Amino acid sequence: MSTDRRRPGRRPGAADTRGEILTAARRVFSEKGFDKATVRGIAREAQVDPALVHHYFETKEGMFAAAMELPINPQQILPVLLEGPREEVGERLVRLLLRLTAEEKTRAPMLALLRSAVSNEQAVGMIREFFTSALIFQVADRLGVPHLRIEAAFAQMLGVVMARYVLKLEPLASASHDELVEILAPTIQRYFTG
Amino acid sequence: MSTDRRRPGRRPGAADTRGEILTAARRVFSEKGFDKATVRGIAREAQVDPALVHHYFETKEGMFAAAMELPINPQQILPVLLEGPREEVGERLVRLLLRLTAEEKTRAPMLALLRSAVSNEQAVGMIREFFTSALIFQVADRLGVPHLRIEAAFAQMLGVVMARYVLKLEPLASASHDELVEILAPTIQRYFTG
Repeated sequence: MSTDRRRPGRRPGAADTRGEILTAARRVFSEKGFDKATVRGIAREAQVDPALVHHYFETKEGMFAAAMELPINPQQILPVLLEGPREEVGERLVRLLLRLTAEEKTRAPMLALLRSAVSNEQAVGMIREFFTSALIFQVADRLGVPHLRIEAAFAQMLGVVMARYVLKLEPLASASHDELVEILAPTIQRYFTG
Repeated sequence: MSTDRRRPGRRPGAADTRGEILTAARRVFSEKGFDKATVRGIAREAQVDPALVHHYFETKEGMFAAAMELPINPQQILPVLLEGPREEVGERLVRLLLRLTAEEKTRAPMLALLRSAVSNEQAVGMIREFFTSALIFQVADRLGVPHLRIEAAFAQMLGVVMARYVLKLEPLASASHDELVEILAPTIQRYFTG
């Protein structure tokens, strides 16, 4: 496709360069999936210098989170999980997820992502690759835990978010963070430390 | 609404009485929810004798399962969970769910129900009431386990089904039943027996 035909009036340094990068990113991620998409390819699609993409989003993960309007970036979650005593990783993860999902403005985009995953085959591939590459495998490999165990922990928390905010099962939907930590943290801890 | 206007040519004992009861059931369940719907109300809606509804479906749970085309009836699951040694309930539940979801013909309607729950506010209420009244609270009360713990177990298995068959996360999606039992059964067991 010709550049001129596609963006006739585009000037360098136009005000919404960031927005144009995100539009290009959404297109490339949904066509190629998370793993095969590259910062360079997205820059080419947006007709900007790759350095500009790095300037705005730092990493491919950060760009994905922004493009999908995710309220959280795995790069912010990883330190919470990896730092601090290993024997408290279960409680840290449960508290972090409960805190993130307690707020409407972080919960809404996470539930939207879940809805896409359930209803849209193409979205599933992209979401799966993002979760595994950017989060699950990172955690598993840095902590030396088998991938299957991290996915079992992920499944537990995914199910809790579904039961609490989608199905709204009581008493789970109204349970306090402390009640949920008491019941869930040992499960997550066992998956992480065996 | 006038009976005559709605079903002009209906004869008593018409061939598809069962189908008409199911159509009426779907309408009543979605209007009133599972808890408030009654066999009597559904019989009235279908213009049949309540005894006929009992004849075809035995219970309200059975009628719901048939109306929603669920491949399983909670009345069949409960004995599996409640019979046999208490210290093996975790393994029994995990194996039962893996077996049920392994077959396309039982898995498809379960995933369809999950999709409705995620995308349809009205369906959520109906599904929530059915799961809690017909399954979760029954198990919890008969085994004397707090509802919250049974829901945590339910959330674990819901998340596993989502991760395995919707997100298709590897290695979880390809893991054998034995591998999954080894990792998940202790979690479920802990929720059931503390």
